[in-house]
Amino acid sequence: VLIPKIDRTSPVPIYKQIRDAVVGMVDDGTLAAGERLPPTRLLARTLGLHRSTLVRAYAELWALGYLESRPGSYSTVRRRPRVMTRGRLRSRAAVDWDAVATPAARSAHETVQRLAAARRSSTPAKLADLSELAPDATLSPDGDFRRCLRAVLEEEGRRLLGYGDPAGFGPLREAIARRLRSHGIDVLAREIVVTNGAQQAIDLALRLLVRPGDRVAVEAPTYGTALALLRLHGVSCLGIPMRPDGLDLDVLAAEIDRQRPVLVYTIPSFQNPTGITTSQAHRERLLDLCRSRRIPLLEDGFEEEMKYFGKAVLPIKSMDAHGVVLYVGTFSKVVFPGLRIGWIAAPQPCAERLLALQAACSIAGNTLAQAAMARFCELGLYEAHLRRVHSVYRRRMQTLLHGLRAHMPPGVAWTEPAGGYTLWLRVPGTGRDEQALYRRLLNEGVRLSPGSLYFAIPPNQAHFRISVSSAGEREILEACRRMGRVFANAR
Amino acid sequence: VLIPKIDRTSPVPIYKQIRDAVVGMVDDGTLAAGERLPPTRLLARTLGLHRSTLVRAYAELWALGYLESRPGSYSTVRRRPRVMTRGRLRSRAAVDWDAVATPAARSAHETVQRLAAARRSSTPAKLADLSELAPDATLSPDGDFRRCLRAVLEEEGRRLLGYGDPAGFGPLREAIARRLRSHGIDVLAREIVVTNGAQQAIDLALRLLVRPGDRVAVEAPTYGTALALLRLHGVSCLGIPMRPDGLDLDVLAAEIDRQRPVLVYTIPSFQNPTGITTSQAHRERLLDLCRSRRIPLLEDGFEEEMKYFGKAVLPIKSMDAHGVVLYVGTFSKVVFPGLRIGWIAAPQPCAERLLALQAACSIAGNTLAQAAMARFCELGLYEAHLRRVHSVYRRRMQTLLHGLRAHMPPGVAWTEPAGGYTLWLRVPGTGRDEQALYRRLLNEGVRLSPGSLYFAIPPNQAHFRISVSSAGEREILEACRRMGRVFANAR
Repeated sequence: VLIPKIDRTSPVPIYKQIRDAVVGMVDDGTLAAGERLPPTRLLARTLGLHRSTLVRAYAELWALGYLESRPGSYSTVRRRPRVMTRGRLRSRAAVDWDAVATPAARSAHETVQRLAAARRSSTPAKLADLSELAPDATLSPDGDFRRCLRAVLEEEGRRLLGYGDPAGFGPLREAIARRLRSHGIDVLAREIVVTNGAQQAIDLALRLLVRPGDRVAVEAPTYGTALALLRLHGVSCLGIPMRPDGLDLDVLAAEIDRQRPVLVYTIPSFQNPTGITTSQAHRERLLDLCRSRRIPLLEDGFEEEMKYFGKAVLPIKSMDAHGVVLYVGTFSKVVFPGLRIGWIAAPQPCAERLLALQAACSIAGNTLAQAAMARFCELGLYEAHLRRVHSVYRRRMQTLLHGLRAHMPPGVAWTEPAGGYTLWLRVPGTGRDEQALYRRLLNEGVRLSPGSLYFAIPPNQAHFRISVSSAGEREILEACRRMGRVFANAR
Repeated sequence: VLIPKIDRTSPVPIYKQIRDAVVGMVDDGTLAAGERLPPTRLLARTLGLHRSTLVRAYAELWALGYLESRPGSYSTVRRRPRVMTRGRLRSRAAVDWDAVATPAARSAHETVQRLAAARRSSTPAKLADLSELAPDATLSPDGDFRRCLRAVLEEEGRRLLGYGDPAGFGPLREAIARRLRSHGIDVLAREIVVTNGAQQAIDLALRLLVRPGDRVAVEAPTYGTALALLRLHGVSCLGIPMRPDGLDLDVLAAEIDRQRPVLVYTIPSFQNPTGITTSQAHRERLLDLCRSRRIPLLEDGFEEEMKYFGKAVLPIKSMDAHGVVLYVGTFSKVVFPGLRIGWIAAPQPCAERLLALQAACSIAGNTLAQAAMARFCELGLYEAHLRRVHSVYRRRMQTLLHGLRAHMPPGVAWTEPAGGYTLWLRVPGTGRDEQALYRRLLNEGVRLSPGSLYFAIPPNQAHFRISVSSAGEREILEACRRMGRVFANAR
């Protein structure tokens, strides 16, 4: 008969000691399959324990598959099935995961690995990280957010922890609609689907509109992770060159007529990576192009809120009288990227279909985070935060532009963004130098984002995206000085 | 010169009053494009206000596109672009969203609409909702969760609100790995990708493995929203009939050899919708089938934790010595479905690729919710909750089985689940009656889930899924009585 040894001085609860003792005895063969265990009542008396302790231990042993038990009968040791352990894992796997993956998934995997490798490379003397595009965590209003979270949890915690609306938390959709109206977009809450960040919003649009083999017109360069996502959908990207005033509309018009893309993807404000913002006239012409060809236009307004220089240009969606534009937005580039709250606003029949896809792909989003974010907006904390960070980022961007003017050798060229976090810099020479320059900059303690990550087909020139989101003014200036040295020696 | 009227007794902040007054005057033409606004300093003096109030009002007017302003110069009224308003929306849209949607998206849209319609139908005399499959909100340990959330926010709020790891929050992956080990699955944290619920886990697996036109073997019946997702991926479903002991392995073997599916999708425990749990021997044979044919097996363990009767059967993944099984799990069917935390565990090379897809599709999940959930597990609150709810649901299931035995007319047949929330009931007669029976049950105040939602090709017989997740024992018994009346009259 089994009498497990109990250590009453141990911090391990007694029921766990009993459980582990039995597990050990079964695993090492001391207890054989079919052997009876003493009834809990009897064993409790023997060991001087409360019976509930034994009941709990037996229950766990049963759950782990070590015991058979039937009401009113003895518990017996169970023949454990052939459980696979790491040691028994066959070296020859039955499935070759690279071979079974779809070509699209393989291609997305490669792109993500390339992006991750660029992010990972170690910086020996880290001075300034000008590669990340995420709001500066030191400016994050987490105290305010925590109060919002606490308030909504106290008011309706139970509801917020249950399944939510696949379209998103109602009051948040209202808050987003209000925000969009302030940018000239006349949209109703029911035309908005809340998503897991802007990325999932783009994904939904692609799921609705593209088939493998379709063509999608994108800016060249454009947002790197959008390229990964487009590859995952198996589409081929028509890269339309970016001019200083935005994507080349003549080329776009010709490509539309020649290649019939099913979608045009554009980032008209503070474009990622170039920082370029297009004019009102450019927007009107682009919209007209898509409208007349009846091609959906996916407008990525990921930094809509980050204008802090010059004149305000309204989103393309604000002029969409013919229901052509799908508009993507996000809170991630202003506050709390970790909450993963983005959205897509689209003409009603399109929004309905996006919603159905959202329900099929993920049932719903995180209602709790959405409710707290809604409260954050309703209390005016979002607008207050925007005002606060605008002045910080404006100064940083001015510092960067000033630093570049002071330290760049002749031939180096860059954009002058009207807001947002990033600008785009071209170094004379060839594209092959880009990787070498990137490494030399790292050795100087400066991390930029290599330009090749933003092209479907990298050009024959070295580019870098420079972001002011995570570095202070002093670091930015010093980084410019060092970039100047590296680029001057490169020629 | 403009002098807006200010109401100092109004609850509307004064800067907003000024902003709205100017907006009104521009919109109705009182102020024309190009007109100068008085300098803020001057207007502040005139109105007897602090200058900062005027600065703020002008800044908002600028952001809204109503003003041009240049440092050191006058602000002038701006010619607003042709902003689209609801009133100006053309009735003839330029894009026909149904026509441009992919056939797969259209089909998913239809499935979701069918599921939603079934959920929506109104219950005149609502007695018991036995259609939902979600943990009973009245048993939700939200107090405990709030404490966990508060603790992690206080300890590392800033980090948790920033971009997280695409694979999921580290300590949560550890907690999940521990939990899986308790079910016999020997898995490392790095073989787990945390997802936006089990649904997104299935989606990732499909994104990795299937191309439009591929075939996937599924149980018939199976989880309805998985069917919607499979349709969205453009695959054709091979429905393998469910027998009382699980999917028919002879049919599966024949279909594999004849149709070469790229994936087998199974729910071996408390299958949705039937409630059937397969035996150890069945699992071994299924695994062997997939291993020998080198076909990935997607095991959906969505209710792994909900066994509360009979003997414990270990997951198929626990025997996976050849790296064939992708295992999906979730917290949603035990606690907090609104947090949307699921996961997928897979052999290392497969997990790596799933992770890349996760990064491409959604960058990362909600780190804050994941951290709070990790704490909930670490403190033993998860296991405590499981113990508490098992006894509740066990009693409810026993009540349902008792009620069916007492009240069903001859010919009605049902499964006897060993756990979980649902069982499956067949009513003699033809499938065409299902909708009529469903309506008659609703009139009696009982909502079941119509069986046709769970088939790719609905059979010629009426079925219902009955869930005990959201109804108490008294309601369940009364519902059985009424079902008995409806089914007896139906013949």
